[in-house]
Amino acid sequence: MIVEMRTGASKQEVDDVVQKAKSLELGVQLNLGTDKTVVALLGSNTGQIPTDIFAVLPGVESVTRIMKPYKLASREFNPRDTLVDCGGVKIGGERIVVIAGPCAVESEDQLMQAAEAVKKAGASILRGGAFKPRTSPFSFQGMQEKGLELLAKAREEFGMPVVTEVVDPHDVELVSSYADMLQVGSRNMQNYALLTNAGKSKCPVVLKRGFSCTISEWLTAADYLLTDGKNQVVLCERGIRTFEDSIRFSLDISAIPVLKKNSHLPVIVDPSHAAGHYSLVPAIAKAAVAAGADGLLIEVHPNPKEALVDGLQSLSPSDFARLMEELRTIARSVGRYI
Amino acid sequence: MIVEMRTGASKQEVDDVVQKAKSLELGVQLNLGTDKTVVALLGSNTGQIPTDIFAVLPGVESVTRIMKPYKLASREFNPRDTLVDCGGVKIGGERIVVIAGPCAVESEDQLMQAAEAVKKAGASILRGGAFKPRTSPFSFQGMQEKGLELLAKAREEFGMPVVTEVVDPHDVELVSSYADMLQVGSRNMQNYALLTNAGKSKCPVVLKRGFSCTISEWLTAADYLLTDGKNQVVLCERGIRTFEDSIRFSLDISAIPVLKKNSHLPVIVDPSHAAGHYSLVPAIAKAAVAAGADGLLIEVHPNPKEALVDGLQSLSPSDFARLMEELRTIARSVGRYI
Amino acid sequence: MIVEMRTGASKQEVDDVVQKAKSLELGVQLNLGTDKTVVALLGSNTGQIPTDIFAVLPGVESVTRIMKPYKLASREFNPRDTLVDCGGVKIGGERIVVIAGPCAVESEDQLMQAAEAVKKAGASILRGGAFKPRTSPFSFQGMQEKGLELLAKAREEFGMPVVTEVVDPHDVELVSSYADMLQVGSRNMQNYALLTNAGKSKCPVVLKRGFSCTISEWLTAADYLLTDGKNQVVLCERGIRTFEDSIRFSLDISAIPVLKKNSHLPVIVDPSHAAGHYSLVPAIAKAAVAAGADGLLIEVHPNPKEALVDGLQSLSPSDFARLMEELRTIARSVGRYI
Amino acid sequence: MIVEMRTGASKQEVDDVVQKAKSLELGVQLNLGTDKTVVALLGSNTGQIPTDIFAVLPGVESVTRIMKPYKLASREFNPRDTLVDCGGVKIGGERIVVIAGPCAVESEDQLMQAAEAVKKAGASILRGGAFKPRTSPFSFQGMQEKGLELLAKAREEFGMPVVTEVVDPHDVELVSSYADMLQVGSRNMQNYALLTNAGKSKCPVVLKRGFSCTISEWLTAADYLLTDGKNQVVLCERGIRTFEDSIRFSLDISAIPVLKKNSHLPVIVDPSHAAGHYSLVPAIAKAAVAAGADGLLIEVHPNPKEALVDGLQSLSPSDFARLMEELRTIARSVGRYI
Repeated sequence: MIVEMRTGASKQEVDDVVQKAKSLELGVQLNLGTDKTVVALLGSNTGQIPTDIFAVLPGVESVTRIMKPYKLASREFNPRDTLVDCGGVKIGGERIVVIAGPCAVESEDQLMQAAEAVKKAGASILRGGAFKPRTSPFSFQGMQEKGLELLAKAREEFGMPVVTEVVDPHDVELVSSYADMLQVGSRNMQNYALLTNAGKSKCPVVLKRGFSCTISEWLTAADYLLTDGKNQVVLCERGIRTFEDSIRFSLDISAIPVLKKNSHLPVIVDPSHAAGHYSLVPAIAKAAVAAGADGLLIEVHPNPKEALVDGLQSLSPSDFARLMEELRTIARSVGRYI
Repeated sequence: MIVEMRTGASKQEVDDVVQKAKSLELGVQLNLGTDKTVVALLGSNTGQIPTDIFAVLPGVESVTRIMKPYKLASREFNPRDTLVDCGGVKIGGERIVVIAGPCAVESEDQLMQAAEAVKKAGASILRGGAFKPRTSPFSFQGMQEKGLELLAKAREEFGMPVVTEVVDPHDVELVSSYADMLQVGSRNMQNYALLTNAGKSKCPVVLKRGFSCTISEWLTAADYLLTDGKNQVVLCERGIRTFEDSIRFSLDISAIPVLKKNSHLPVIVDPSHAAGHYSLVPAIAKAAVAAGADGLLIEVHPNPKEALVDGLQSLSPSDFARLMEELRTIARSVGRYI
Repeated sequence: MIVEMRTGASKQEVDDVVQKAKSLELGVQLNLGTDKTVVALLGSNTGQIPTDIFAVLPGVESVTRIMKPYKLASREFNPRDTLVDCGGVKIGGERIVVIAGPCAVESEDQLMQAAEAVKKAGASILRGGAFKPRTSPFSFQGMQEKGLELLAKAREEFGMPVVTEVVDPHDVELVSSYADMLQVGSRNMQNYALLTNAGKSKCPVVLKRGFSCTISEWLTAADYLLTDGKNQVVLCERGIRTFEDSIRFSLDISAIPVLKKNSHLPVIVDPSHAAGHYSLVPAIAKAAVAAGADGLLIEVHPNPKEALVDGLQSLSPSDFARLMEELRTIARSVGRYI
Repeated sequence: MIVEMRTGASKQEVDDVVQKAKSLELGVQLNLGTDKTVVALLGSNTGQIPTDIFAVLPGVESVTRIMKPYKLASREFNPRDTLVDCGGVKIGGERIVVIAGPCAVESEDQLMQAAEAVKKAGASILRGGAFKPRTSPFSFQGMQEKGLELLAKAREEFGMPVVTEVVDPHDVELVSSYADMLQVGSRNMQNYALLTNAGKSKCPVVLKRGFSCTISEWLTAADYLLTDGKNQVVLCERGIRTFEDSIRFSLDISAIPVLKKNSHLPVIVDPSHAAGHYSLVPAIAKAAVAAGADGLLIEVHPNPKEALVDGLQSLSPSDFARLMEELRTIARSVGRYI
């Protein structure tokens, strides 16, 4: 951590910074510049010390963090890629894992048709929402536990693990009893009550990026899931909020190489929620695979026109099958397979 | 709702849009333009119908919503300003209500000193966090129920109502039993499980704006709180995430006139979380009052240098007292008082 | 164009809107909704009529544009893909065109080494800046006309067309006399004096996206270049400004499919300026090809450590050669070649 | 400047950083942390040295700038507030200067009516655009030199200095011969050819903030104007691009205190271009005065409904007169006057 003093800061002010640092058992090195004094604070835990502790002292101009604020999710903590096991399917290895299914479980028929279609086209994990976080209280809120039962039934019938979202910290146990992997949604990325409970579940967790959170904040949120010794966390980029209005969220393609550099966790991409429109899904999905994503999360509905939720961003079974063909070729061109 | 058909859309495609609209009991008016067919859908509930239902149909280019997606929070729903009663203090009237206190309750001493100081300087409501949503799992998480007890004690001692944050949907009842007003924080603005429970509480609720949510999304989230007949909701602007890096969040000053135009709910401003630095708080607070805010939420700590949380953005008691003097003059200049 | 009247707008106010529309020779269709009156304005040029003309009238709540604000750059104006000819190299066809070279021309040696390296690795066009728009007045401003001469010399020696940036409207003629294609930089995308002059040049133009401009504004800026009958314009996505701070600019990967849908102009991607760091360039470049880009603009420096400008984002010749190999495989996987 | 080495960086890599620093005559201080080596580079010009020079070296993880990238515009360079003299009117002193007039000069009648109205209401400087940077090539582009003549005539008639925009670097001399102050628009904030020429003019310059530029970039652009010894530059905040869509640009109210802290130049605010709608102008204007702005730039049109450009954001003479009354009261409440 680097503390820059104001031009003209007094010796006493510099000393106060040094004392505070020593009280936190940090090493200190003084740089008496021609214009400014700069104090470097050294120690292995400076990433977890709030910069405010120093910024608030008199005579301090700015405090800059050198260590990253996250720890357990960092590449330094674990230099080797983590493999996440979702009901026997490994995420983070040579195989690119496609997770597909409807946005919401709407009925047994709808879910079984979707599961059959995605299985046939080559998806390895089934997705479907039972608890839906909806922006409007007047919208369909999901089938809840009945939806979980249908997901379990689809797993039986098609032999695919299932992933589904949990939105209330007190539902973690219930959802874990049905699902192979929990999903924490974008709007809950900084819902710490939920993260804390999900971190205690035996299930692996897909942590979607908050649509306005930096990668650094995202990995810090992942630390919440990792605190109990769990290492089964998958990061899912799903688009960030920008000024561009031709798409619902702008997919941050550079998040993939940045995460690969800074974290050991597998990275998947959700082109459907970013795009908001089925016609943009294939280009984004292909880009993600080329950029090094370990998997994709794609919405597929047997009949998008009749979907209760997010039909516009869902692929039809035939569009999905065609996209899977294209993705296989691209996966091979980067030395992987689907 | 306006459905724009693609250039060259077939008569059948237009008919399908019309049929879908009729099945939802919407009125339909066709505009056969020179280049494009445009279908206007009419009805009093089009704001609550997802645009996707039409956008997904073949031949549709785009769907534009005319009605707003929120309803209960809208000025149309209630043309008169709502007054919110927080333990006897009215928010939304001629008086500008200043809510002040420490970010987190840290100890009895700290809270009592803060309460005394803000009371003396003219604040009407005491704030203090007992449950803290922290971005890092390694940070201080708040005193929890013990903090609530101290808040209740401070209310007794200084005769000020108290507001405090709730972060877990299952703590709503507990927090309501101590507080005069609940706060839903920025990171939880779209935590629908929490909103639903908070909406059921007898307490009024301060709903902070999600730092990357539009005003329209914010009012839609307010609808969750208002669904059970409650009308005691205060909106709190606290800065939005932008590219600018000289401040923690950019305070959206225009949110004040926009909300006054589109909603009947009172609007307050939190300059402390936006600024992230005490030196920027006074200018933002003064601007908010001049722009028409109904109140302010300001962090004050008896000793900012020793604060466990957010000390950098907290005012000292003397800085707060000086700011209150300035705010009184500005309040008078816009025909109000503090 | 859709004009929504306020709830309770008077008949006179509606009539005024209708009269104004008729004075502009627009067709009018009235939608007398249950809650609101909505007026649809019809005509083939409504995209070029400012919405303000109606929004300013009494009783008007909002005005929504249905027609796009750009025209000549639109897919409707020209349904077939435009091929741009840069010194004999066609951009926009089956071949993915790689434009490479140093950010700035620094010396004859540097340019010739760069040209040789990128030619050998398979680039088809040479880039190099002679006039540099620098954010600080204390930075190197480019070799100016001497740089243009060196670019012309490199073209001779290596048989590659050259593209270079023009920053002053009065330099268009000079730069056109040396270059095969002009580049208008991101910070000048809305420099209309420059666009107007560049549009008059016989040279094709690469128009880089303003780093905070929407795709719609970008295509509207392209209309400036296209007004004199020119159709030789290439669009270059180079990253947009967002809140994310792990990269200099967030590359908007979805711009590729959006532009392919809405415009007939070729689309290339500059991963170097987006990334700001060489280590992120390959992943973004590969993603762009997979997503359907028609070309890439990549910075290559014979010795990045000694570069006067943007060395950090430049690839070394060997890194570039390795990337070209990978790009060739991905190009083939999407049915194209380099 | 702080250079953080990668974990495990070799001694040779650290030495290379040190050598490079010494070759630039920078002081060096090594911090051998427990986890990482950090190198502090010291010298009075490190703000003007690109960070890339070090970031590109092997073994370097990141480079952080401590010195600001701008110099002449900084408060350190000139601790006292600069007063800018625009035709005898001082900007930056106790008086809050209101600059008002139409967006574009449209005709003699229109300009004279506007000038009379704003003079009467208490504005001190007249504004009006003769060269208009328009986003669409199909829009009205301004009256050009004829417009300048009309501005000069209005100055004669009403005894008010005039400010007008220059968009082409080669028009600086022409515009300077008519105007008392030049305006560089938001879209040209990083048009360095224009800045360089405007910096050479004898006229003071209003530099509007690029709508997606940070305050640091803005002050760095101001350095271009200040390089020739000029100190007559006024900064104008006019809103930044964010995700919020209820307003055209989000006015960055915190820019006022941030600029007051970091720069000696006067700061004014343009509420009209930020708001995009007349109904939002008063609240923003009042907030700006309360927050410490030295002036306002407000669009006033004798008949907004007939304006050729930006009528929606223009105040009518009567609305402007009413706002001026309110602003006077607020100015007094912060110890200033209009």
